Amino acid sequence: MISEITAQELNTENFISEKVKEIKEAVGDGTAVNALSGGVDSSTVTMLGHRALGERLRTVFIENGLMREGESEQVVGFFQKLGVTVEVIDARKEFFAALAGITDPEEKREAVTQTFYRNMFGRIVKQSSAKYLLQGTILTDVDETVAGIKRQHNVFEQLGIDPQEAFGYRIIEPLIELRKDGVRKVGKALGLPAELFERIPFPGPALAARVIGEVTPQRIETVRKATVIVERLLKNTGAFQYMAILHEDRVTGMRDGKRDFGQQIEIRCWESVDARTATPTQLPFETLEKLAIEIISDVPGIVSVTYNIAPKPPSTIEAV
Amino acid sequence: MISEITAQELNTENFISEKVKEIKEAVGDGTAVNALSGGVDSSTVTMLGHRALGERLRTVFIENGLMREGESEQVVGFFQKLGVTVEVIDARKEFFAALAGITDPEEKREAVTQTFYRNMFGRIVKQSSAKYLLQGTILTDVDETVAGIKRQHNVFEQLGIDPQEAFGYRIIEPLIELRKDGVRKVGKALGLPAELFERIPFPGPALAARVIGEVTPQRIETVRKATVIVERLLKNTGAFQYMAILHEDRVTGMRDGKRDFGQQIEIRCWESVDARTATPTQLPFETLEKLAIEIISDVPGIVSVTYNIAPKPPSTIEAV
Repeated sequence: MISEITAQELNTENFISEKVKEIKEAVGDGTAVNALSGGVDSSTVTMLGHRALGERLRTVFIENGLMREGESEQVVGFFQKLGVTVEVIDARKEFFAALAGITDPEEKREAVTQTFYRNMFGRIVKQSSAKYLLQGTILTDVDETVAGIKRQHNVFEQLGIDPQEAFGYRIIEPLIELRKDGVRKVGKALGLPAELFERIPFPGPALAARVIGEVTPQRIETVRKATVIVERLLKNTGAFQYMAILHEDRVTGMRDGKRDFGQQIEIRCWESVDARTATPTQLPFETLEKLAIEIISDVPGIVSVTYNIAPKPPSTIEAV
Repeated sequence: MISEITAQELNTENFISEKVKEIKEAVGDGTAVNALSGGVDSSTVTMLGHRALGERLRTVFIENGLMREGESEQVVGFFQKLGVTVEVIDARKEFFAALAGITDPEEKREAVTQTFYRNMFGRIVKQSSAKYLLQGTILTDVDETVAGIKRQHNVFEQLGIDPQEAFGYRIIEPLIELRKDGVRKVGKALGLPAELFERIPFPGPALAARVIGEVTPQRIETVRKATVIVERLLKNTGAFQYMAILHEDRVTGMRDGKRDFGQQIEIRCWESVDARTATPTQLPFETLEKLAIEIISDVPGIVSVTYNIAPKPPSTIEAV
């Protein structure tokens, strides 16, 4: 059982120095590897790890082919300015091969997990002789995994899986007592730039969690194009999270007076403090119309767009 | 090529006496059968046919298992008050058998068509020695079928199909020069009660057009329950049409803290004059929330609800 530190009771200065000390003690004079996705959680862990280990922390960004448009360049650029070198590893082939033919959401998350942890990090850690992997797991991930709601891509010990045995390295999870709002406070205190810090949450399995049904390069490209539009038009809403989801269902449409049997994009935009509960943002209809028109015009194959109106629970933030 | 009569130029009195005369002349001293679905089109045709043929028109309501809650009782009751006897024929088994295993929208519409026209009406017309079937086809149905957007369930001659040859009877389509707004004017003039006349349009394949994927009694029951809620909460909006659509895609949800891998209902509510183009109604968020909460609470298996925000075109009014 992990005891929660709420954002209210969190003393960021004490928290940071305690975690830096813990990481130092755990890793000793060895090295550690750190997976940076560009989200608030992994960015905060990167800063904590960098403060504790300096050059002995190897920070990698896995280009899994499932990230948003321009994401790797952007993330590398952000951290370059902060003095942290990020290594980009192209693993697109591995991920799409692992995901081919899978439609079940849990199997999909499992395929991403296995490719990340066994194939990629197993190899990276072995090559670098590191014994530790830093991870941005937060308490909400643990709750939902233990409750059986979702299989997060980065929760092992809580499920009785020994990563040392399964993958050949130990995992350090310095944010595991916090929820999203606490992580944001720590990230701010560690000097993450507002631009990066204000990025909306993005799931571990990345755009694979935004595709219902099989994940293919083409379907990821479709949801990536829709995501660009959704993020651009909703970035000033102040919402907790917003996303485009590609459905597998086919719906009847028409173009140039002919039937066009096409696909649907669902948009979700959430109001939430800590992701445990959430309600759809009351977007102005003008915004909803603009979203629909741009997606229909610019994303090939899309004839229909919907907006989520159900709260969490019983919905979840992501659809997969 | 059929020449359109617009609602503006329509003289309802002349139109009605002309059509009554045409029906009388066509049927002579024989009899005709008339398929009443309870929609504005078929209700208007029923009144025209009744005026022309009186007791020589046999009006049947096919209980295909795909209608809305309480629909057959309601329709029979409406027409009883107007002096028109409606015969209800239970054909649920035939329809579900014809639809079993079919997921393609066109094949689904075709299965409904074949069951309606060959199995049901072929039999009814033969038994009754009628040579004519009255049909509520309107010009929009013809346009969309000829253009290949949708296969309407009641358009034959325009596709080069001879119903006499294919089904053993002739079809009379007195509303074929009109669009929806024109039909409403004629229906009013024929004395249809406001209650029936104000019913929103409902497609020929009924709730089978509101289910993406296979049509089963259970899936029809799900969308029927959602339809009751949508129609109740949106009936005072003045919208052109509104509906619930059951998706086939599964989405992750949670109930009682556990994962509940469930289904999604999409709501569509349209502003339109003649169904050729349409835009989503700008419903207040309060209404959208109420819709979502009621559907999630009362319809088993539903964890997610969306609202359509795309216009027609490139969307169509119905999803199937």
